[in-house]
This record gives sequence, structure tokens and C-alpha cells, in this order.
Amino acid sequence: MNARINMVTLGVNDLLKSLHFYENVVGWKKSKASQENVAFFKLNGILLGLYPRHLLAEDATVPAEGSGFSGFSLSYNAKSEKEVDDVIASIEKGGGTIVKKPQKVFWGGYSSYFKDPDGHLFEVAYNPYWAFDENDNVIID
Amino acid sequence: MNARINMVTLGVNDLLKSLHFYENVVGWKKSKASQENVAFFKLNGILLGLYPRHLLAEDATVPAEGSGFSGFSLSYNAKSEKEVDDVIASIEKGGGTIVKKPQKVFWGGYSSYFKDPDGHLFEVAYNPYWAFDENDNVIID
Repeated sequence: MNARINMVTLGVNDLLKSLHFYENVVGWKKSKASQENVAFFKLNGILLGLYPRHLLAEDATVPAEGSGFSGFSLSYNAKSEKEVDDVIASIEKGGGTIVKKPQKVFWGGYSSYFKDPDGHLFEVAYNPYWAFDENDNVIID
Repeated sequence: MNARINMVTLGVNDLLKSLHFYENVVGWKKSKASQENVAFFKLNGILLGLYPRHLLAEDATVPAEGSGFSGFSLSYNAKSEKEVDDVIASIEKGGGTIVKKPQKVFWGGYSSYFKDPDGHLFEVAYNPYWAFDENDNVIID
């Protein structure tokens, strides 16, 4: 299994509501490959997929019931503390829910979290120890 | 917020057990940037992070309790049905748990799922309608 992930699919309870959030609050552009009950966003190499939560569970052949902390987060690494502040201000202005306001954190960075309409967690962070390549991907060995 | 995700972080209950799984069963190489209680895997532009589940919840300032379906999946797009079969056979041989055996699915592809030690779901699929670029990223508009 080669070292890649091609898509992160988020199960959503209301696709139209989630589409509004990702298109108008986060500000990403929906791919033309999207269909009536599935949406794709082309990111940096990987795709973000939005799919009804019960259908995602059905596709994986697992029970759809679940509650509380989902046990994962998606991180957006900003290039400065100011970019973190700006992104979070923009999400908040658009009506998104900020879970953790931007702040200095123990590992030496500056971090915050917002959540999407289904509670999926996005960290927006600046890590002064990490650099970016020409595609805005983090460079680590 | 630019169209990218730099990291997917999975909360894990036993980091050593998860490290064994990702290094020896999935076969990915741990980054040198990993530390005692956090591991990184450099994938196609994005990073996979493994972090103790209760610390991830603490970092996001949300309650750590949660159970059942986590509401997301990570997809690996293979380049043929045979590659799907081979990846799943390899995961199974390594002791991983196959959730859905490789099979033809309604959208015209060939798909299967396995789960990691914490139940995080990975789809391994072949989509005959999707092509790849030179970095093995899916090409869509």
C-alpha cells in the first residue's frame, strides 16, 4: 500500500447545509465531479468528500449509530499567527462555530479549532518549526 | 482559507499498537519528525498523524467520550481491481481486520474497507472513471 490517501470522506447529516458551509464559509470550490448526493472538493492532492452519514456507514457495512468525540481532526497549517487569526475570523464571520480560539500552545505553536455543521473538527495552526514546499505542503523527513 | 488540508490526525488508544499497525501492516514509514507521544507519516502532500485520543480531545477542548461510528473514512484509490485485492490481502495477512471484502459496488467501481486498531475506516477502491496524475493523485475538475 503506497504512502498516500486520495480522499477524506466526511459523513454529513444534511448535505445542502454542509455544502453551504464548505462553499460559503470555508470558501472552497465544489468539484464538477460532484453528484446529487455526494460532493467533492479538490484540495492539495487529496479530495474532501461529503456524503450522507448513514450512506457512508452503509457503504462501509458498519452500524451508523455513533455519538460524542469522533476521534480525529483535520489540520490546516497556516503560514503565520496572523493567517490563523484571519482564517478563524472569516469562519466566525460566516457563521461557523469556533471551538478553540487562536492561542499559543504547549508545543510552541499557535492553534485553534473550528467545527463543521456535523461537528467534524478542523485545527487551524501555525507551527514555527515547519516549512512549506511550493505546493504549500508541509516539509518533514 | 486556501484549498488544502495539511494533516489528518487520528486519535489512538495505544500509540505503540497503532505504530505497529501503520509501519508493519500498512507498511508506511514513520517520519523522523515523530516524537514520544505523536507519530507522523508523510503521505502524498498531507501528513497522517497519530496522537493519543484523550490528548487530541483535550487539544481541541472537547469531551473525549465517544462511541460507535466516527462518521468519516479515508480512501486509498488503487489503479486496478487487482491492486485492491493485493492491498487487502496484505492487510489481512498482517493481521489487520477487513470490514468489507473487495467487491463490485453500485457506482461502477470495486471497493473494500479495513479498519485500524481503533476502528478508523480505510476504503481501498478502484474507480474506473478516475485517472491519476504523476503524483498518484486523483484528477478531477
